[in-house]
Amino acid sequence: MTFHAIIPAGGAGTRLWPLSRAGAPKFLSDLTGEGQSLLQQTVRRLEPLTGDNVTIVTGAKHVDAVRGQLPQFNEDHFLAEPSPRDSMAAIGLAVEVIYHRHGDVVVGSFAADHLIEDEESFRSAVAEAIEAAERGYVVTIGITPDSPSTGFGYIKAGESIEGLTVARTVEEFLEKPDVATAQSYVESGRYVWNAGMFIAKASVLLEALERFEPELFEGLVNLADVWDSEHRGVALGQFWPDLKKIAIDHAIAEPLAAEGGMAVVPANMGWSDVGDYASLRDVLTHDADYHGDAITGVSPRGAEHKVVAIDSPGAMVYTHSKPVTVLGIEDAIVVETEEAILVTTREHAQSVKKIVDGLHDVDLDELR
Amino acid sequence: MTFHAIIPAGGAGTRLWPLSRAGAPKFLSDLTGEGQSLLQQTVRRLEPLTGDNVTIVTGAKHVDAVRGQLPQFNEDHFLAEPSPRDSMAAIGLAVEVIYHRHGDVVVGSFAADHLIEDEESFRSAVAEAIEAAERGYVVTIGITPDSPSTGFGYIKAGESIEGLTVARTVEEFLEKPDVATAQSYVESGRYVWNAGMFIAKASVLLEALERFEPELFEGLVNLADVWDSEHRGVALGQFWPDLKKIAIDHAIAEPLAAEGGMAVVPANMGWSDVGDYASLRDVLTHDADYHGDAITGVSPRGAEHKVVAIDSPGAMVYTHSKPVTVLGIEDAIVVETEEAILVTTREHAQSVKKIVDGLHDVDLDELR
Repeated sequence: MTFHAIIPAGGAGTRLWPLSRAGAPKFLSDLTGEGQSLLQQTVRRLEPLTGDNVTIVTGAKHVDAVRGQLPQFNEDHFLAEPSPRDSMAAIGLAVEVIYHRHGDVVVGSFAADHLIEDEESFRSAVAEAIEAAERGYVVTIGITPDSPSTGFGYIKAGESIEGLTVARTVEEFLEKPDVATAQSYVESGRYVWNAGMFIAKASVLLEALERFEPELFEGLVNLADVWDSEHRGVALGQFWPDLKKIAIDHAIAEPLAAEGGMAVVPANMGWSDVGDYASLRDVLTHDADYHGDAITGVSPRGAEHKVVAIDSPGAMVYTHSKPVTVLGIEDAIVVETEEAILVTTREHAQSVKKIVDGLHDVDLDELR
Repeated sequence: MTFHAIIPAGGAGTRLWPLSRAGAPKFLSDLTGEGQSLLQQTVRRLEPLTGDNVTIVTGAKHVDAVRGQLPQFNEDHFLAEPSPRDSMAAIGLAVEVIYHRHGDVVVGSFAADHLIEDEESFRSAVAEAIEAAERGYVVTIGITPDSPSTGFGYIKAGESIEGLTVARTVEEFLEKPDVATAQSYVESGRYVWNAGMFIAKASVLLEALERFEPELFEGLVNLADVWDSEHRGVALGQFWPDLKKIAIDHAIAEPLAAEGGMAVVPANMGWSDVGDYASLRDVLTHDADYHGDAITGVSPRGAEHKVVAIDSPGAMVYTHSKPVTVLGIEDAIVVETEEAILVTTREHAQSVKKIVDGLHDVDLDELR
């Protein structure tokens, strides 16, 4: 069965300011100096499974930049949202449009701004997810936890599925836990992280959407019916603003799991959502340059980046144009971009949004 | 009696890197955004007492920059040292040359890179020091301690001197103490900081030098005899390299104090040697702009300096061209200059030299 990938490319990645900004979001950035943006890496990683069967859903204001990074695709591959309506509307629209164009193929949704180190393991997991999808499940890829993270939702795996290698039914989706709960999850060996990847037959996904969120389904049907016609613009103006804002997890995954309709493929593939500087620091550890105590990230890798870090174990430095020196700050995070400088520590990685909010107070909204 | 000021302008101010660098030393910098360098402020501060009677002693490599900052003085006001020979040689040469040119005037030596907030009190103290000097003392200005600093030498004051207001004899010069000793000094009320200012009749100073360091005296006499002739260059080549490297404190002040020949004028005048970023931070406190938690220093003051500092009490930021943001680092010190960025904390202010040493390892000697 043909496999079509849907890549929702949204979110500013505020916690990675100033590397990621509202006008230059994370998915368009090459945070690890690979020579490709996170979006380009996502497409490349899927290509052996999808070929050209890729649909990117992004905000209208980013569609030109997104198309610029993916010149191999014609305009049919890009769906522009007039405004953010959360993941169910974005993915649902893409599934409807793909169903109209290609019939009942298997679709899979993958965030545009994650990193995966072991791409073979990723594709093996997706291949097994496609098999499970062909049996009628909505399937998610679950990440085997390497720490009791409180930053992700968890998935409790149930029974194995006959004829499949590692796929299991999903007993339950669980919200981000506290530390003690996370530890008990990890110790039990039955829980995996929810990485937000969903694979299903288009018909299965749309049928679930119609049952659980009938109004949203109707709105998306109205849009998809005219998407490839001159009426698209009018329909977007008419139906888009009223679409319910809901995540696919709440709209479909959770209620369907309760019915036994969800499966999970556990995988260990060096996945990271690169959600903040602590996460980025961990990703860089695998393949990076050290200068004294500091690991250095640059984009693109290979640029001249002179760094001196002394008595600063765990430091991370991104330097754009000037040598950066760090003295006596453990786990320092120093980021120089063309526009601004951020100085903080790993401990405060989750709070970088405070800085972005603070820019308003000094009349620097253009840097947000 | 005429009063002549000698201003030794030397020292790279390594602990204030990158604001101060070997090629752009502290005394040439405007660290507090006053619109004048520390050297220019030193000359201006003395001007009511000295008029044009000012002699600056500086390294040969800095003499052009020094002259450029003091265009009001002709070449006779500048003595260029071929190489550093510590303070006794620098001051002794200036005293000899002044003695040759002007006879037995009162001279006073004042570092080129200190800050004084209350200039009236400073000049009152110097005026009293001149009176004491006319009675034959070598006189120092002692700073009333506002904390048990371990960063300065101390002076133990002795008896008052008849006919003078606050001047006292010096019992003893003491090296930088440990904290407990410093506390006992401050509590006793009899000790002041040694700020390295010395005022004396030229003849008194030279006579002391001849007694305590006869070889150094001879070398300086040989130089001064031909200074204002075509033989200066040859004499510098012949005598300068062999001059003993010794501080004026050890050469004259300490042995003379033991004989009862030193006096001290205690003064409370908002003095700072601006010796490191902690000291600079304290100076800025008096007259500065706050952005969130951070005090900002700029040179020149008034430049556009956008700073956001959150959860970073006590932070200090110098920004040259880009907005700087600081999150969650108490007493952070962030300095952006045209050439480099330094990130550290107040606690490490004394160790900034480590960074300067580290620049060599990454091939950045030109930034030192």
